[in-house]
Order: sequence, then structure tokens, then C-alpha cells
Amino acid sequence: MKPQYSLATLMLGLFLLAVFPADDGKGSGAEDSRIIKAIFDEVLVSAESYKLLDHLSNQIGPRLSGSEGAARAVQWTKEVMLGYGFDRVFLQDVMVPHWVRGAVETAHIVLPSGNRVDLKVTAIGGSVATPEGGVTAEVVEVQGLEELTALGKQRVAGKIVFYNRAFDQRSVHTGRGYGGANDQRVDGPSRAAEFGAAAVVIRSVTTAFDDAPHTGMLSYKPDIDRIPAAAFGVQSADKLTEALRARGPLKLHLELSGCWLPDAKSHNVIGELRGSEHPDEIIVVGGHLDSWDLAQGAHDDGAGCVHAIGALRALQRIGYKPRRTLRAVMFMNEENGLRGGRRYAALALENQEKHLAAIESDAGGFSPRGFGVTASEAAIDKIRSWLPHFDPNTISYIEAGGGGADINPLNKSQGIPVIGLITDSQRYFDVHHSEHDHFGAVDRRELELGTGSLAALIYLLDKYGL
Amino acid sequence: MKPQYSLATLMLGLFLLAVFPADDGKGSGAEDSRIIKAIFDEVLVSAESYKLLDHLSNQIGPRLSGSEGAARAVQWTKEVMLGYGFDRVFLQDVMVPHWVRGAVETAHIVLPSGNRVDLKVTAIGGSVATPEGGVTAEVVEVQGLEELTALGKQRVAGKIVFYNRAFDQRSVHTGRGYGGANDQRVDGPSRAAEFGAAAVVIRSVTTAFDDAPHTGMLSYKPDIDRIPAAAFGVQSADKLTEALRARGPLKLHLELSGCWLPDAKSHNVIGELRGSEHPDEIIVVGGHLDSWDLAQGAHDDGAGCVHAIGALRALQRIGYKPRRTLRAVMFMNEENGLRGGRRYAALALENQEKHLAAIESDAGGFSPRGFGVTASEAAIDKIRSWLPHFDPNTISYIEAGGGGADINPLNKSQGIPVIGLITDSQRYFDVHHSEHDHFGAVDRRELELGTGSLAALIYLLDKYGL
Repeated sequence: MKPQYSLATLMLGLFLLAVFPADDGKGSGAEDSRIIKAIFDEVLVSAESYKLLDHLSNQIGPRLSGSEGAARAVQWTKEVMLGYGFDRVFLQDVMVPHWVRGAVETAHIVLPSGNRVDLKVTAIGGSVATPEGGVTAEVVEVQGLEELTALGKQRVAGKIVFYNRAFDQRSVHTGRGYGGANDQRVDGPSRAAEFGAAAVVIRSVTTAFDDAPHTGMLSYKPDIDRIPAAAFGVQSADKLTEALRARGPLKLHLELSGCWLPDAKSHNVIGELRGSEHPDEIIVVGGHLDSWDLAQGAHDDGAGCVHAIGALRALQRIGYKPRRTLRAVMFMNEENGLRGGRRYAALALENQEKHLAAIESDAGGFSPRGFGVTASEAAIDKIRSWLPHFDPNTISYIEAGGGGADINPLNKSQGIPVIGLITDSQRYFDVHHSEHDHFGAVDRRELELGTGSLAALIYLLDKYGL
Repeated sequence: MKPQYSLATLMLGLFLLAVFPADDGKGSGAEDSRIIKAIFDEVLVSAESYKLLDHLSNQIGPRLSGSEGAARAVQWTKEVMLGYGFDRVFLQDVMVPHWVRGAVETAHIVLPSGNRVDLKVTAIGGSVATPEGGVTAEVVEVQGLEELTALGKQRVAGKIVFYNRAFDQRSVHTGRGYGGANDQRVDGPSRAAEFGAAAVVIRSVTTAFDDAPHTGMLSYKPDIDRIPAAAFGVQSADKLTEALRARGPLKLHLELSGCWLPDAKSHNVIGELRGSEHPDEIIVVGGHLDSWDLAQGAHDDGAGCVHAIGALRALQRIGYKPRRTLRAVMFMNEENGLRGGRRYAALALENQEKHLAAIESDAGGFSPRGFGVTASEAAIDKIRSWLPHFDPNTISYIEAGGGGADINPLNKSQGIPVIGLITDSQRYFDVHHSEHDHFGAVDRRELELGTGSLAALIYLLDKYGL
């Protein structure tokens, strides 16, 4: 990708410098409005984030940590930012876990007649394989970890545990419904292993009612047997629960062939626009470059990556010269290890870097709705005072709490304010971690409004501090 | 469709009556919060609006005024509301314009070599037919009505005028971009006819960059020749403008065969929940039942219809007994005549009905963002004071101005406060009036949040008045 400076860009830059002369640091509402309008005009017309996401999704595709796709994404995002002429583009080395999905992923109900009912299934990320030929055992259905515990070892040992508690549709923000169901995926396997289960299957953690299985990470506890774990599409989970209800005890056959490889070398990718007044003060905007392996990771979190690059690119395109240093960071390994986010925070401490704030976009490329902020009350109030600069159809609220998995280590280790972009969450868990998370599920304008909202927030942080 | 009362519904109703006893009229914040939570729980879990929209879109489909689809939609929505046991369901007769799209809709560029370049085209709604065999004439491209006027009669007479000004992508709310371009479609044909043009073609008024033509209404001025008018898909418009740029003057061939039939008898469809304290005071919530003919009219405005029915249904399901009379109104003929909306206002006046307020949903079944209110400042302030009852991921602002095409006559003739549901507008004009406005373009949860927001507003209006 080549730099795309055109005469029009240069003229726009000169125009903006003429219209927005260097101010006295206190700023003016009218000037802010004009710059923020210029940002949104730029992103909605150029659609640069959307073009980047097209490439990342359709030309690179799945990017699980350690995969070839992840390595290509590292190289490509670096080249994109070099092509834009960012002031500095560099990599941070990080060793990442390397799990590989197996070629075999099958499950079926074994009917007493000997007939079978095939189910749509995928391994939960990080699952060990079944023995070759699979495991066949009686199914015990539970609606969550509590019910499993109540059943006890005697009724679980040797069986396949089926966690079937559904995503609670009632929360307006679907993140809450997700949080209320994904303990089955994350903690369910080890909990079942404690009771001697042979394997675990779960109802996919999704708002959808289709049959696409959704993967995601599990967390094996130390010193507990690692048993195979897989997720059903919702319709397959319904088939199984209906069969159990109609026929009583049934056997399930499950075969998975994934495996763990040694940790792999990978990278965080960082691009900077250098500050003119306080180059040592850093504002981070980031997303995670790795994705699950079932699709292109367009929403999760290709969107966050192109939001971050696109936000800096938009500021550059309108000719804005930052006072502080702005960093677009593509974190590696959010999905199954968080090594990149932890590494970034460790290096920030080691290098005695001064971070003003860190922002993450990891809620999909949907229309922006708000920002969630973890910071002092005064800092939250200051950010809230900027709300009038945002069209209410973009950012309409600032709430206390929030950030992002990759930037939270900065907050935990050094108290750096962290901010998460909150997008409209209604469609997110339809596609999240499934085969449906592809470029076609992203709307151009919705994505670009996210880029604009981030660029506007960065501009305000850069100008007014925190 | 049969009534769907279940034991669970009855128990929920009894539970709510116990939890929310009749209050003293002043209400309490906690009670309001509980009822509004119950509303959102109900719509997100039952997804009743979504189920209705599935039927309206996939079983009935296109419903242009005067069509068989429109007649079936009238009967079906009436039956649905009867099936729900609404207190009163009735029709209002209204005569509607009856335009029928022709079987022939073709356009191509005639190259000097005699070869042709086919373009994707559809008649603008209401267009007269070309002579049989079509019209072939030189194209004159303009970027809008002003440029046409500047060209003058000499350079326009006998030619096909090509209005090619694009949808301005910069406005965050796409309604503004639409308003800035659709004068070419609405007024363009008569303006061109004044200068002696043979026909009009336009670039479709859309945010998309695909090749689906978007129809919509034109307005022929009295005493001016009615000339044929059609809309190109954006890619076809680009082909034409590029060909003109590359090759100079070119001829275009256009053939359309639509026609006008005599006005047809049709209906507004109205369902009521009768008020217990002030049955003579009416709160209207409505959408328009007619749609353009190129697709299912799922967003425009099937969504508004199922929002209206669904909002009353949700209040009924949670056991809420309204103080005032609540009306779900399916207006007929918004798209090409507005006869239903005018008829409703005329009958309201004639019958001396007292309307507290009227709400319309006609911005698609996307996530709600706000309400636009045309009313006294005091009334707007009162509605704004209810904002804290809404999750900011649903209704996050109340703005002055707004309403809906079908309810505005109530405001104009009698000063009745009118309120429009503002939804996230980013995807609306991708599908609006085109073949893409089908059920698959509607997200279940986004649609239901609209239903919930309307039901919550109705509840607050009913309880506190205006």
C-alpha cells in the first residue's frame, strides 16, 4: 500500500492550518467543533478504515495467535502505517500461546436404534483432542455450573457434561447477557473434570438462533485433568435437549483433534504520530490484531485495529499536528492469552514511558454509542464535559467503568486512565467467534463513525489533557 | 393468527398487578423503572414484532397503495389485532392513488459504434411510460436543479436529463444527506419538462455504492408535460458519467411501461386498548402499511407497523391497564399520496376526537437513538425529563422538531404534539425503496428495542400526560 497524499489532501491541510491557528491551550468551542466536523467528514468520505478492513478480512483473514495469518497481519499493518508516513512504526516482540484447531470436529447423538443425529459443533479454543476415534458417553445436561455442582461426582463421572444455559436476551447491552453465560465455556470444562466428566459440550454463547457454533477460550485449571470441550450451534443444542427430554438418557459421540504447539514469536505493532509539544506524553488507541480462526475476525477485532489506524490517519489527513504523541497499537493475543497487552504494559513500565490515557476498540465495528472510562472521578467528569462535541447519534454517554482487555494492564499496573469504545451491541454476539464474523457483516458508515469518534476523543485528550 | 394467552402471561399479569398497584397519579421513579424494565424484557424475549414482520415481509410482501399486497396487509393486521384481543379494531376507508410499475424497465447507452452498454434502472414511482419502443435521445448530465436551470431550454430541449448529484455522505444522520439529494427525484422531472426534456434519469438517492436502483415518488407539477423518469443504480450512474467524460455526447435509450389506474379503495387499520380513566383521550402510535413495490418494505415501513402493534401488545402482555386510550394505527399511502394520514386527521376533527399525542415510527427497524418532538417547549421539556428512564443504548436524546409524514397532519390541523422515533440511520438508505428492503436486512434485537422504546414512551405519556 502506497502513501496516498494528493494535492487535495495538502490543500485541505493548508486550509485547516489557516482556519485553525495554534491556540492558547485553552481552546475554543467553535474551533473544536470545526476540527471534529472535519474529522467526521474525512472518515465518512474517505472510508479508509473500511478499505483497510476489507484487505485485512478478505486478503489476510483468520489470525489466531501463532498462525500464518497473524504473522501476515503484523507485516501488513506495519506496512500500511509506514505507507501513511507515520513518524515511527515499530514492533514489540512477544511470545504467544499457539493452539491449532484440528481437522476433525464432529458430534452426534447415538440413538438406541443405533441411528445417529449429527450436530453442528466446533472445539472450544484451547481444547485438547479426544482420543482418536472420539469419545462416546452418556450425556448429562445442566443449566450451569451450580447445577453441575449440585449433581455431584456420582452422577457426572464418566459422562459428557452438556452446559445448556441460554444467553439471557433481556439485557439491552448484550455484553451483560454474554457475561452471564460464558462461565460455562471458560470454567465449565475444568469444573466438569473435577467431577470426573469425560468431556464437555456447551450451547454456544450467542444472541442468534441459528446453528453456527461459536468458539472462544476455555481456562483449564492447573492440576485438573484437561478434558475435551466443544460448542454446539444453538439449533443443535436444542436438538440435543429435545432428544433428552423425549427419550431419556442418551449417548453422545464427540471427536476433536486440536492440539497445542510450543509458544510462538509474535508482535504488537505500533505506529506513532509524534507530539510537537509533549512528545514524551503518549495517548494510545488500539485494538487486537489476533482473531479466532473460524472466520475473518472482521468485527472481533479487525474493526478495532482499523479504528485505531484510521483515527490517526484521519487526524493526519486533516493536517492536525498533535501536541502529544499518538500511538495506534495492534495488540497481539487478546483472544487466548493476553500476552500482547501485558507485554505492552511491562515495556511501558520498563521504558518509563508516560501514558496520558489508553483507548481500546474491541466491541465490533457497529455504530458508536458511548465511552466507558476507568479513571479518577475528575478525569471522567472532564471527558463527560466533552459530550456536547459529539453528535448524539455517535457518542451519547460517558459511563464510569470500562476500558479493554489489552489496555487494562496499563491501568492495573500504573493507574493509567483507560477508555473503551462502546458500540451498539445488538448484532455483536450473533457473529462473535463464529463463522459469521466476516467483512460482509460490517457496515461502512457504522465502522467509520467509530473511527471518527475515536479520532475526536484523541483530539480532545491531546488538546486538553486529563 | 390466534390469541396467544398462556398461563405464563396471566401469571405475569397478576404478578405485575401485585407489584405495581394503582398509584396516586404522581408516580414513582422506582415503579416506572420496574414497568419499563418489564416492557423491555417482554419485547426482547417474545420478539413478537419480529415474528409479525417475518409474516408481513415474507408472506405478504410488497404493498404499494392499491395493490393486492396492500389489501392483504390491511386484512392481516386487522386479524392480528383482533387475535390479540385488543378492545376495538376497525378500518377507516380511504381512496388512494393507484400506480402500477410496468413489466418493461430498460436503459442502455447507445455507443457511436452501435454497441450498447446496459444500465440497471427502475421507474421512479408515478412515472408515465415512454412511448412503446422507448425513447432515444442525447443525454445531458447535471449535478442538480440549479445546474439544469443554468443550462436553459436551448441545451435541454429534446434531451434526456441525467441528474447525477451524489448523496452527501458527510452528515452523521443520513436523513440530511437524503434530503439534500432527493429534490432531483421529486422535482427533477417537472423541472426538466419545463425546459422541454424528453425524459429524466437520476442517480439513485442512496448511501450504498452497489447497483440496485432506488425508487420513490416524483411530483409532477400541474400544467407541465409529464415525462418519463427513472433511477439508475449508483454503479450504472457511474458508468454513464464515465462514458460521457470519456467519449463526449452520447445517446441513451430508455423504455418504461408503468401506468396510472383510477383511485382505489383502501383503509387505515386501527387497533385500540381502551383507557380506564380517560377513554376519550387518545395516544396514537403508528407506521405506514403501504410500501414501495421493489421489495418487502421490511424497514420502510413494515418495521413501523410492527413497532406500533408490538408496543400495544407488550403493554397488554405485562398486564398494564392504560388510563387513556392507546391506538396502533397502520396508515395507508404514505409513499405516494399521504391520503391515509390526511384522512385520519380529517376524521379526528370530524369526530371531535381528543388526541394527547401521536407517535410515528418510519425510520426503519434499527436501534433506537432518540425521539424528535414537535410540541410546546413545556411538552418537550416534560418528555426530556423522562430520559433517565431509558437505557442510553436505546433512547439517548430528545430533540425539538420531528414527527412523521402520517401524523404531521394532526399537528398542522389541530396542534397535536407529534413525536418521531429516531433510529440509527447508517444502513437505512442502503436499502430504502430498493430491492434490498427485505426481512433479512432487519435485526431482531434492534427492531425489538424500537418496540420497547415506543411502549415505554406510551406508558409515560399515558401516566403523566403532556
